[in-house]
Parts: sequence; structure tokens; C-alpha cells
Amino acid sequence: MRATFLYEAGDVRVQDAPDPVIERPTDAIVRVVRSCVCGSDLHPYHTMSAADGPVPMGHEFLGTVEDVGSEVSGFKRGDLVVAPFAFADNTCEFCREGLHTSCPQGGFFAAGVGGAQAEAVRVPQAQGTLVRLPKDVDERLLPSLLTLADVYATGHHAAHQARVEPGDSVTVIGDGAVGLLAVLSAKQLGAERIILMGRHKDRTDLGRYFGATDVVAERGEEGIARVRELTGGHGTRAVLEAVGHMPAYEMAVGAVRPGGVISRVGVPQYEDAPIGFGSLFGPNVTLTGGPAPARAYIEPLLPGVLDGTVEPGRVFDRTLPLEQTPEGYRAMDQREALKVILTP
Amino acid sequence: MRATFLYEAGDVRVQDAPDPVIERPTDAIVRVVRSCVCGSDLHPYHTMSAADGPVPMGHEFLGTVEDVGSEVSGFKRGDLVVAPFAFADNTCEFCREGLHTSCPQGGFFAAGVGGAQAEAVRVPQAQGTLVRLPKDVDERLLPSLLTLADVYATGHHAAHQARVEPGDSVTVIGDGAVGLLAVLSAKQLGAERIILMGRHKDRTDLGRYFGATDVVAERGEEGIARVRELTGGHGTRAVLEAVGHMPAYEMAVGAVRPGGVISRVGVPQYEDAPIGFGSLFGPNVTLTGGPAPARAYIEPLLPGVLDGTVEPGRVFDRTLPLEQTPEGYRAMDQREALKVILTP
Repeated sequence: MRATFLYEAGDVRVQDAPDPVIERPTDAIVRVVRSCVCGSDLHPYHTMSAADGPVPMGHEFLGTVEDVGSEVSGFKRGDLVVAPFAFADNTCEFCREGLHTSCPQGGFFAAGVGGAQAEAVRVPQAQGTLVRLPKDVDERLLPSLLTLADVYATGHHAAHQARVEPGDSVTVIGDGAVGLLAVLSAKQLGAERIILMGRHKDRTDLGRYFGATDVVAERGEEGIARVRELTGGHGTRAVLEAVGHMPAYEMAVGAVRPGGVISRVGVPQYEDAPIGFGSLFGPNVTLTGGPAPARAYIEPLLPGVLDGTVEPGRVFDRTLPLEQTPEGYRAMDQREALKVILTP
Repeated sequence: MRATFLYEAGDVRVQDAPDPVIERPTDAIVRVVRSCVCGSDLHPYHTMSAADGPVPMGHEFLGTVEDVGSEVSGFKRGDLVVAPFAFADNTCEFCREGLHTSCPQGGFFAAGVGGAQAEAVRVPQAQGTLVRLPKDVDERLLPSLLTLADVYATGHHAAHQARVEPGDSVTVIGDGAVGLLAVLSAKQLGAERIILMGRHKDRTDLGRYFGATDVVAERGEEGIARVRELTGGHGTRAVLEAVGHMPAYEMAVGAVRPGGVISRVGVPQYEDAPIGFGSLFGPNVTLTGGPAPARAYIEPLLPGVLDGTVEPGRVFDRTLPLEQTPEGYRAMDQREALKVILTP
């Protein structure tokens, strides 16, 4: 089959690779119908050394079941399925609590498993991981369904962990796909005031469509001052941080109201950060978030996608065939495209 | 009057000072009946330079009202009162939300206000700050009532912010007064498993009396391993950190279960700390806590103290007259005393 590999920073290649096969009785093989490029794929695209490559890329996909291992039941060849970006058994104590990203049987689509920017993918723990979609689903819904694999689930996780509730005030940092879907999620949970911090007008316009009430283009101290100005001087009760770089964390600390919560879903590109008296402790600010247990959210979020209540698939603004995946990375990196969907 | 001042690290003096007077119409003057030395007083006792001194000390007291400003109503001379360690107007938006430590009119008993390790103290925002106690209260209850000013309220804040609930598993780091009262508070909120990390047997015995089910004397990696061993490998859902030094934070990160919460009430003696993928983010751990809005907790916690359901005053194991306050600091610093109560 054809599959995408990152060789080193900036070097993405689509090449021949062995067809995936059932390796364990809990595996399934899924033929990819749609996949896409993630903002988090851009982190290794910026920094990975050749010594760490090549690695298979892609962790978001819709597909049809092609084969299942002997311990996988309830799925048959041809079923349309979506998978969360982290596989999990869906039966352990963590999965039962909705924290599938901490499943001891779980893991990520990466080296040793395979990537989803490919014609087919091996899915470990398929019974617990895959979610079947309706057979006759309208093809126009595929982009929105694909967002359940990661970006919509991750945006929802940000708002969910921040316990956004009706009437709430929320700042969303980042106008990438996750930030915009954090706006959508905050709106769904009833937030009244949603301030979107982002500098790309086409993206922040989509953010307004999803429910942002204000847009702040300034960054750093100016951005913090603007959020405080909009909120009577104190900031918003919740800040959803969908970037992962230190300046975004610093803006979150500046924009959160005393007693409020910073919910991070952008993968942190730092380990140490300020959390002492002058940042989080003094004003009793809570810090939460992490990788989204997307599997826990797919079923609750699915009905709104299927009936058209929400259209998270609007974050896709470019469609490319799998062979042009490297162009997808380039376009997203250059901010020419918000999010690129890939077809076989 | 006589009052306590810290001149520099290790140098505490009781000396003559001007009697406090009403400076603003919102002030009251309270004659101190009981005060005490706090674990947090030991931080400047260890590190303060002579250039920053002398500073008035003490922020926990019970007393009788001696005088009130023209804008203070509802209190009369002779009323027995307790005050939270942070004064506040109790009417602003933050106070109404129960976050009195963020009151714009609020502040701490410190330079410019006066300290409570003294014969009398000026209380700013007295109307909002003071809570009247029953006139005929049994003198044996005074130590427990005094803990409402800080250590019991702070232990309660740790458990409250961690949202401890019936059946919960909790680790408490630190066997000082706050740690022990965090144990008591976790027990009150229904925690089933309470692991107390501490090395002083007389203190951990009191912790067992307050509700600890297990005691871990080991520290660092060994302490973490022991907590994990006691909890099926994963740690406890909540960790209440009542120390404030970096090793205690590191133990908290090691002892918390994925998806769990670290609630800090020990004043952090650091600003930067690990919060990235390898510490908080990857396992979706929440970090919360801060200075306790004691004012919000005094009224709800008062009935249990008055009827003897709880005896938080057991943390006091030495009584000294005000003149011997320096000996109180020395004894607490040397771990000879857990917490020293001062009489006029």
C-alpha cells in the first residue's frame, strides 16, 4: 500500500509500505476512507532529527473494516468506522472512568503500529477502539465525522475539563482546528462570553460562526490586557489553551480570572513552567487538561454531527489526495490551510 | 502594648509597640485572647534578610472587640470573635463566590496592618472579616476555634478544592498542622482511604486519630513507590500537598492517579515546576489550590467545632505566654512542637 512517513523535520514522503496485517487477535485492519493532517503532526515536522526517522504519520481516520482478529466481535467487513487517536481496550478501570488515554492496553498510532495517512491501518484493541457509523451516512458528513477522531473531541475535552457551564465566560487561545472546536464546544456547553485569541481573520471568522463573541488578535501582554479590558479587568473564568507553546501558557495565566481554570489541550512543548504564588497559587487558579480521551466522547458527540446540529468538519479547508500529503503539511505549516483532509 | 516582630531570619522579638487605633471607619480593634505560630511563619524565619525587617508577625487570633470604626455595625465591645488570616469586605464579587483571598479590599495581617502575635490587633474591613462566637463558649474549645482562622480552614480548602467525596482515595503530604487537618477534612468529606506521608510518629499518630488509614514515612522516590504499592500501582485520586517545597510537589506528581488532582495549600517556595507531558499533561492530572478563603469556611465548619464533633485544636501541643513567642518559633522550627498557642 501507499503510506506517509516523516524522515526528518520538513521531509514528508508517501511511499510503498507493506500492507498491514492482523498481528494480534485483538487487531483489525481498516481501509482508510478519509484521513487528515493534525496540528500536532507539525511539532515533529518542525523538530524531528533524521536519527528518529522514518516514522509512520497520521492518527485520524474514517475507514471500512477489512479484516478482524479472532477476538474482535461485532464488526464485519465493510462496516464504516471511526477511531479515536489513541486506541484502548474500553474495559479497564481507566476506560470505564472515561480516561481511555491512560488505558494500560492503549497507545498511539505511531512507530510499531502504523499511521493513518495511508491506504490502510492496523488498529490494535479494535473491539474497544472502533465505533461503527451508520451505513448510509451522507458523504458530506464525512469531514465532520472525521473530527470525532481528534480535533472535535479534543476541543470538547478542553471545555469539559474546564467544567464550562451555562452563562460562563471563556477565553480560547489558538485559532487552529482544536481552538475553533473548543469555541464550538464551549458554546454547546452554554458559555455566554467566548473570547477567541487568534490572528488569522479567515479562522477567527469561522470561530465567530462557531460561537465566539469576541476576537482578540493581540498577543502577549497586549493580548492579556485586551482580554482583561473586555472582562471588567479580571479575565475569564475558563481559559482553553489549544496551542502548546510557552507564550500561550503565559497568556492563559494572564487571561484567567482569580479562582478560574486553565484547561490545556495543546501538547506542551515545555516541561517546566510558572505555577507558584505569582501565577497559579496566589489567585487559586486551577490547571487541568491533557490528551483527550476521544473514545469517551465519540458516542455522546455523534448525534449532533449526524443530525447537522454542529458542523465541526468546517475546519477542513483543503482536500488533497494521499499522494499529496507532503503538500498538506507544507500548506498547514505555512498557514495557507487550516486543516487538510486526505482522500485515498 | 507588647507585640512580636521578626527582625531577620532567626531573630524574633517581643517588644513594646504603639497600641493599635482605628485608622479607617471600616476598622476594628480586637484584644487578643489566643494567637499562635504558623508553619508559614517559619518561611521568613528561615530566610528573611535584615533589610526587610522588622515586620509584625502573626495572622491567627481569637479576641474580644475593643473598638469599632463608624462604618462597622453588628459588633459591640466585648464580643468574642475569630478572624480569617486574610481580611476581606465579604461583599464584592469574589467574596460572594467564596474567594475572599482575591477581595480587592482584602489583604494580610503584615507590615502596614499589624500582626496577631500581640496584645491587640487592628482588623481592617472588620464588618466583613470578623465572625462572632458564642459568648459563653467553653474555654477548652478555644484552641479548636482558633484553628478556624487558618490551619483547619486551610486543610479543608485542600480537600474542598480536590473535590474529595465519599469513597475517595487521598494522599496527604506533610504532617504539620495543615496536613493533619487536611486528613481530618478529607475524612469529613467521606474519603475511604487516607494515606498520610510524614515522618514524626507523634504527629502521624494524631493523623491516624483524625482519620488516616495508612502512614508512609518514606520520602522521594521511595515514598512514591510505597503509595503506589498501597494503591494497586496507580496512586490516589487526590493528593493534598501541605508543605510547599519542591520535593513535596514532586512527591505529589508521583503519588497522584492518572486523571486525579493535586491540591496545594503549602505556600510554594518555588515558581517554576514540571507541568508538561511527563508530569501533569500526559496523565490528565489537575493541579489546584491556593491560599484558603478561610472566611468562607468559618461558618460552615463552626458547628462541628462547637458541638465537639471534631477537635482540630489537638494540633496545639504547647502553650506559651506571648512574652515567650521566640521560644515558640524555636520549638516549632526544631520540630519539638507541632504548633504553639500563645496566651496574653
